[in-house]
Amino acid sequence: MGYVVGDYLLDRLQQLGVTEIFGVPGDFNLQFLDHVIAHPDIRWIGSANELNAGYAADGYARLRGIGAVVTTYGVGELSAVNAIAGSYAEHVPVVHIVGVPAKDIQAHHRVIHHTLGDGDFHHFRRIAAEVTCAQADLGAADACQEIDRVLNSVRVHRRPGYLMLATDTARIEVSPPATPLAPPADFSSAGARAAFARAARAFLGGRRVTVLADIFVDRVGATGRLRTLVGPTSAQPHGLPHATLAWGKTVVDESAPNFLGVYTGAASPPHVRTAVEDAERLVTIGVQYTDSITAGFSQSIDPRRTIDIGPERSVIGGVDAFAPLSLSAALDILTELTPEFASPATFPAHADTEFAEPLAADAPLTQAALWPLVAEALGNNNIVVADQGSAFFGLATLRMPTGITFLGQPLWGSIGYALPAALGAGIACPDRRAVLVIGDGAAQLSIQELGTWIREQMNGVIILVDNNGYAIERAIHGPDAPYNDIAPWRWAELPHAFGGDAESVLTLRATTVGELRECLKAAAAEQDRLIFLQVVTGTTDYPPLVSDIASALTRANTGS
Amino acid sequence: MGYVVGDYLLDRLQQLGVTEIFGVPGDFNLQFLDHVIAHPDIRWIGSANELNAGYAADGYARLRGIGAVVTTYGVGELSAVNAIAGSYAEHVPVVHIVGVPAKDIQAHHRVIHHTLGDGDFHHFRRIAAEVTCAQADLGAADACQEIDRVLNSVRVHRRPGYLMLATDTARIEVSPPATPLAPPADFSSAGARAAFARAARAFLGGRRVTVLADIFVDRVGATGRLRTLVGPTSAQPHGLPHATLAWGKTVVDESAPNFLGVYTGAASPPHVRTAVEDAERLVTIGVQYTDSITAGFSQSIDPRRTIDIGPERSVIGGVDAFAPLSLSAALDILTELTPEFASPATFPAHADTEFAEPLAADAPLTQAALWPLVAEALGNNNIVVADQGSAFFGLATLRMPTGITFLGQPLWGSIGYALPAALGAGIACPDRRAVLVIGDGAAQLSIQELGTWIREQMNGVIILVDNNGYAIERAIHGPDAPYNDIAPWRWAELPHAFGGDAESVLTLRATTVGELRECLKAAAAEQDRLIFLQVVTGTTDYPPLVSDIASALTRANTGS
Repeated sequence: MGYVVGDYLLDRLQQLGVTEIFGVPGDFNLQFLDHVIAHPDIRWIGSANELNAGYAADGYARLRGIGAVVTTYGVGELSAVNAIAGSYAEHVPVVHIVGVPAKDIQAHHRVIHHTLGDGDFHHFRRIAAEVTCAQADLGAADACQEIDRVLNSVRVHRRPGYLMLATDTARIEVSPPATPLAPPADFSSAGARAAFARAARAFLGGRRVTVLADIFVDRVGATGRLRTLVGPTSAQPHGLPHATLAWGKTVVDESAPNFLGVYTGAASPPHVRTAVEDAERLVTIGVQYTDSITAGFSQSIDPRRTIDIGPERSVIGGVDAFAPLSLSAALDILTELTPEFASPATFPAHADTEFAEPLAADAPLTQAALWPLVAEALGNNNIVVADQGSAFFGLATLRMPTGITFLGQPLWGSIGYALPAALGAGIACPDRRAVLVIGDGAAQLSIQELGTWIREQMNGVIILVDNNGYAIERAIHGPDAPYNDIAPWRWAELPHAFGGDAESVLTLRATTVGELRECLKAAAAEQDRLIFLQVVTGTTDYPPLVSDIASALTRANTGS
Repeated sequence: MGYVVGDYLLDRLQQLGVTEIFGVPGDFNLQFLDHVIAHPDIRWIGSANELNAGYAADGYARLRGIGAVVTTYGVGELSAVNAIAGSYAEHVPVVHIVGVPAKDIQAHHRVIHHTLGDGDFHHFRRIAAEVTCAQADLGAADACQEIDRVLNSVRVHRRPGYLMLATDTARIEVSPPATPLAPPADFSSAGARAAFARAARAFLGGRRVTVLADIFVDRVGATGRLRTLVGPTSAQPHGLPHATLAWGKTVVDESAPNFLGVYTGAASPPHVRTAVEDAERLVTIGVQYTDSITAGFSQSIDPRRTIDIGPERSVIGGVDAFAPLSLSAALDILTELTPEFASPATFPAHADTEFAEPLAADAPLTQAALWPLVAEALGNNNIVVADQGSAFFGLATLRMPTGITFLGQPLWGSIGYALPAALGAGIACPDRRAVLVIGDGAAQLSIQELGTWIREQMNGVIILVDNNGYAIERAIHGPDAPYNDIAPWRWAELPHAFGGDAESVLTLRATTVGELRECLKAAAAEQDRLIFLQVVTGTTDYPPLVSDIASALTRANTGS
């Protein structure tokens, strides 16, 4: 095979960090897949369906900084569009490569399979344009330039891009990239930096400063800078008190003494709420308030006492905006100012996990007991992927050990996302253990990807909460309604049916506190097998935060 | 509960024939689902995911004449969009009802869950507009009129419609529909009818006439008229010789002596090809030539000897067009003319199924043996849903008994469609048995819907061809390529894992001709249980038509 457009695309992806590509074969992408298979540094991971492939690429990209998914024209790409939209909403850089019919077939408007039969070959590109930041229909004239344009856009906006790779374009011979793509430059102006530094000093100097951080810190790659800012440092030996929103959970080290907790608006623990809302000065960093992480926009932040640092501009006191100013540049400036902040009061030692009542070993599991026990059992460096239902809200406010990455999808909130996303995250980081925490309702949507977990010999942990249906929907509306029931499956049989055996999977089940403790101990001891732990809780038993958020959503939906 | 917009919509759907609705709950549709549950004549069928729900609604609509699927905003509707696009491509009337955020939330551009976070609440409507024939964002002013407009459009165009049902709109009180929706009137003009009748008489009178029918006969509801036309009648006691394309398979009674077979262009059996291509006069009815049913547009039809009857106009001799003229009106005119046609030669008796060599009971199953044995075993009135791979092409050319409905998806060709679609078709016709024939590759994409088959106590038959991957892709490209492999599952364990037991499911497995015969006998004898029959064939063993079509698609994709 000569060096062709498909190779160029793969080399570019590899330069950006892609070593695995997810997807499903289809006749318009098969020849390209030959090049994927032949690439020395890229591995093909066949998914059970395209939506799951898209979710996996999203989970992969959240850890690796970029991900890629290959589908076929029409049927394949549309199956994945929900995953791509989720990547768009949550600022995850995923490259969607679609194998499309040859250019001459398109030019002749042929009525071929995987089309709508009307000869219009751009329906799906228009669909993609709603949920991607850049699109290209690669052609002979400028395929390589267009690939670079789309990949650059994906990196700058940290949102998905869409590449139509026609069967004939894919095999056009080209030269390999001469130089790597240059990383995006910082776009901050010298004027904005200087003006922001002056104004921030005047606003924060001599004051006690609290930090509230969120997801965009991760998205712009400023996690290290944030951790430097909040300290401790020599100038601020106790560090700055700080909290995150649930979307940005684990963007800081939650075991640090100066970490306050997760702020969820009116549903926050009182000490977190007070520290954030009554701060003398609050610095919000990379924050986006959405309904589900604020218990229905119940946050109460006084902009007059706040500096808000966004990805591209910062605002002081709710009125003075400084732009263009990158989040990273603003953090560097603030870090230089920390010696001038008033030192915070000392922090109380973190309370150990507290249970309302002692947990008898034979007590049936409740959600109140479940989530603290799970959080307690997490190992350093675990990647925790929480389904956007009881699992996310059950774990969101619990303190995680050092080194944990916690992933959810609180804005897009696609049920079914978590299982394939955890697979992708685990594949992105083979030296870390992926821990998936998911309800039975959510697991049904994408369960076939369990077969891929097993085939890939992922030594992760799957904690499946078996509570007979869509618990978060029950909390919002219709606790006993039949539409919140699901088909009753025999969960424990699935790992074996999907190809697992005793060497590759340890299947466990817990219905009491004592059983759960034993199972979590066994999971920690079995680092070389996939753990499939079925945990049985009551049908209408929810974590407290679910109840708070559900009430807010019910009010929004019913107007009452 | 008062009578509200949601009730109006449900009553309209019920008037059009909907008694089951498929879907997945989400917080923006839960209140509407209360009305679904409360409706006396409509049953809610919770699907395992939205794509499967869309496929099921499509299968249902193909039998029932209309189907409906309910999803939630963003995440849910986008998961289903591939199914909706398939309904659009294949002219299947499915109503997609999406529960969306309240109008005031939209008006305030809130950053809420299931949005892209940019305050634009019409991204997904624009996506829907690419794959539906009518859309409405239902509001207080004219919700009922808009419902009627979209439903009428769905009926006229036999394509999907899209309804955004905001949580607040859904509960607006309205009056029930005063009268049923009037059925669409025939749009043919008197002038076109008269001119067509004259020209058709001149063109066909005294000639031998062959008929080639296809899918649009079914889509415009003219199956009965077609069967009347091809006879036998008193004027044409042998009837007219006729064939169909594979898309329109079983639009006629294939056991009739004057049925020639299925025409697949150059890949047709010689007697079918000759009868169609060399006909003195050919009448093509509701035909759409697509690549996969013509072995790559290899049909050879001389328009000068042909009348082509389309849904809205007819063309004689390739030049004279008559419009507006409905397909049904044109068929009525032709039926009146049949006494003037020359009588056809008598037809040879159908050959019994012929095998190239005798089938020893202990011979390993081959695709060449498999499909005729399956076809032979079909019972009258079965609904056969064939996955658009080896199953479709293996069965397409085999003669079906009287009363069979054969469904595939040859234009859209979405892998994964067949399993949920067969469930939907079976639910649409509880007095007929659904027979799903599917490969293992295709079954992986939507396997969770097997749990719904079991929960719904469908007494269907699932014939799963276990051949280790995507056989149709292997035939096109990369027979040994790793991307055409799938994760190895233990298929026989899945029915039990998904909730089946010995009372509800009979699980069978065949690896030889003898075992297959026994299994098919057992399936026929067990009318009250779901049959799950795993059939093992070779990895690179394809039915002959797959090889022909794959060669054509390979040529199109590689330009060679």
